[in-house]
Amino acid sequence: MATIFSKIINRKIPAYIIAEDDQYIAFLDINPLKQGHTLVVPKEEVDYVFDLDDQALAGLFLFSKRVAKAIESVIHCNRVGVAVMGLEVPHAHVHLIPINSMDDMNFANMKLSPGRDEMEAIASKIKEALK
Amino acid sequence: MATIFSKIINRKIPAYIIAEDDQYIAFLDINPLKQGHTLVVPKEEVDYVFDLDDQALAGLFLFSKRVAKAIESVIHCNRVGVAVMGLEVPHAHVHLIPINSMDDMNFANMKLSPGRDEMEAIASKIKEALK
Repeated sequence: MATIFSKIINRKIPAYIIAEDDQYIAFLDINPLKQGHTLVVPKEEVDYVFDLDDQALAGLFLFSKRVAKAIESVIHCNRVGVAVMGLEVPHAHVHLIPINSMDDMNFANMKLSPGRDEMEAIASKIKEALK
Repeated sequence: MATIFSKIINRKIPAYIIAEDDQYIAFLDINPLKQGHTLVVPKEEVDYVFDLDDQALAGLFLFSKRVAKAIESVIHCNRVGVAVMGLEVPHAHVHLIPINSMDDMNFANMKLSPGRDEMEAIASKIKEALK
């Protein structure tokens, strides 16, 4: 069965997409820890990030770097933190989270629930910064 | 001033080193969240992971993959999680943490304080698995 991320990739369900190429896609997390929290996903439906082959793994983090640089240029933060756990959805994904402190990356924190207008505005700013 | 990680790289202070090549080093975190918690560090003293050039960044995660596969072969876990925050030490480092649940990667959790014998035994097992 297609994962929720494959459904986003195949445009079966909507998402605030920020960047995409043949191998990867980046979109906003709909329950962000911080404004600008973004997921980067390989289009290949691999569960565990370290089961990606070397080319796909290296590419995932180079794609994430480009997206992180765009995020930090438009979201006020000290830097963009990285987390990969992958226990929630069986499709490898990199969390990119704008952080000012270690606690900003605590997944036990209350998630934000930004409205559609706010999410569209953030996605649009990050996309613009990627150009 | 040299970071604590550069001091480990230059053998000015001891560490439970697991793997090393020209560009990267991996050693046990002395205050692990979980047994087997390992840090992977580029020898180049760059503060922010996304300031590494593409070759160095890709290599860091390929090196991390090799180490993660060794960790998961000897430490009982669902998988190895990845975190990069870098607010603690101004020298980029990847946390590799054997996890069974999201909460295992919560940096607000109490850190473990394993003794020297336990750390040596774990480092030795992971090194053996890397061969």
